[in-house]
Amino acid sequence: MTETSWIAVDWGTSNVRAWGLSADNKQVFSATGARGMGTLGPAEYPAALLELLGDHAEGLGEGTPVIVCGMAGARQGWREAPYLEVPAALADIARTAARPDMADARLAPRILPGLCQRGAAGENVMRGEETQLFGLSALKPGFSGVVCVPGTHSKWVRLAEGRCLGFETAMTGELYEVLRHHSILRHSLPGDLEGPEREQGVSAGMDAGLGAPERLTSLLFRTRAASLLSDRGPDWCGGYLSGLLVGAEVAAYRSWRGTVPVVLIGSERLCRLYAAAIIRDGGESEIVDATEVTLSGLIAAREHGND
Amino acid sequence: MTETSWIAVDWGTSNVRAWGLSADNKQVFSATGARGMGTLGPAEYPAALLELLGDHAEGLGEGTPVIVCGMAGARQGWREAPYLEVPAALADIARTAARPDMADARLAPRILPGLCQRGAAGENVMRGEETQLFGLSALKPGFSGVVCVPGTHSKWVRLAEGRCLGFETAMTGELYEVLRHHSILRHSLPGDLEGPEREQGVSAGMDAGLGAPERLTSLLFRTRAASLLSDRGPDWCGGYLSGLLVGAEVAAYRSWRGTVPVVLIGSERLCRLYAAAIIRDGGESEIVDATEVTLSGLIAAREHGND
Repeated sequence: MTETSWIAVDWGTSNVRAWGLSADNKQVFSATGARGMGTLGPAEYPAALLELLGDHAEGLGEGTPVIVCGMAGARQGWREAPYLEVPAALADIARTAARPDMADARLAPRILPGLCQRGAAGENVMRGEETQLFGLSALKPGFSGVVCVPGTHSKWVRLAEGRCLGFETAMTGELYEVLRHHSILRHSLPGDLEGPEREQGVSAGMDAGLGAPERLTSLLFRTRAASLLSDRGPDWCGGYLSGLLVGAEVAAYRSWRGTVPVVLIGSERLCRLYAAAIIRDGGESEIVDATEVTLSGLIAAREHGND
Repeated sequence: MTETSWIAVDWGTSNVRAWGLSADNKQVFSATGARGMGTLGPAEYPAALLELLGDHAEGLGEGTPVIVCGMAGARQGWREAPYLEVPAALADIARTAARPDMADARLAPRILPGLCQRGAAGENVMRGEETQLFGLSALKPGFSGVVCVPGTHSKWVRLAEGRCLGFETAMTGELYEVLRHHSILRHSLPGDLEGPEREQGVSAGMDAGLGAPERLTSLLFRTRAASLLSDRGPDWCGGYLSGLLVGAEVAAYRSWRGTVPVVLIGSERLCRLYAAAIIRDGGESEIVDATEVTLSGLIAAREHGND
């Protein structure tokens, strides 16, 4: 049986995932849990990590490196890993990791920093995606172009040969959720079912968002008007809202796109939605698996670390 | 003492206001209550109206006209007053009023319809604002230009000599509320205090929204980044969010503005915010009191009615 040489951890807000890796970065085990940053106080991380590792922690040598990315490094997380300011070489995240307290001598955790942006480009922050970007740079050496990481807070990033030049955050996923549950639109779209009705709504919304992103707050109300005037059902309306938000987001970054396809990092379902909007807008994209680049980034961070 | 000849009612979602008027439209009394459409089933309106009128109902002659505008005419209101489709002459709202059931023979209620828009201009609906627009046309005969009614669901309307040519609805006020209470931004802006800090935030947000309305969902996240990176306080952040949403809305309707000042109908505080954004964007505006145009519209509807 292969021996675990070190541990990679992606510690998000609502869940956590760990991989045990051999000296040559072969996967020995993996474990996922629900004890995300949002559920933990700073002192609770060591126990939560040991609980996540379970039997896999047995037999680990003293000082086994644990490379952590994500929200565990936030101010309210395990220990703050201060942001690295862009423009920055992604490899620098490996060199500025924070060392949190860990009572168990078998584990030597390091938390990778997030990225921040200041100045004329506008203030911005990310935590977790920087590791995915580092992983993408490891998988595609020399890549220069635009990366989109769709989600609750979508990131749009300009990369050039292993450097992050700048980035933006669109609150697309969160807007979808708060509008669906807390605005007047909740009356029009209680459901979220896949099917031809939803697809038609997505298509109509995408065209609207791509066509007039500056009128997003008005186009949102069309969801309500469509349900009142045209008896559009909840599936159509849910699709319209989703397509509209994604369309407006893709249109907003139209000017960033060059001749290189936009790299989409995320779940397959979400990435396909963004890919459809980009194609409809005359662009090209390429989907990359999120878990693969996260693990690749943690491996690259281990290789570029100072210890 | 002047005798009440008829009654004007503005029945909104969360409150209701009535005016007793003489034969020559002088105000005899007014009454406000909290039993808005949102709190009432269809059968409860007659009792709610009598309760609102209280002693003022005594001595009313049989069949006293009651002209009602607003959400009482919605499908889930007192009785549906089907939308009038634009383009339409505003005077037509007086001729297509619905007659709800009213057990008390002293009162003969009529509910004015809302306006709807279909076809290429995009589906849209309003209820209540059409009466304000009719009132504005009565106060400014022959007015042609753009009207903005800011609020939870802001309306932007193109009027020409008593006709409504078309309109849009921006969910600005509702977005402000749902983002403030239900999104990640709630951590950055618990307060809503007036003062220089808020004013600075409003100014920064307005510039951002006017400058890049197509990036609204990204500029929203800057609220969060500003609180994390620059220690911006809740008042600055609240002002930024407000200024950003209003700025993006004003920018979205920039192309509608002609040489005539935009007429703003609403509360003074909100109208001043919109007026500031319009000036900053190189336009002009004129503030009109909301209560005055509502009452003026109900009076005009009474005069143009069929009975």
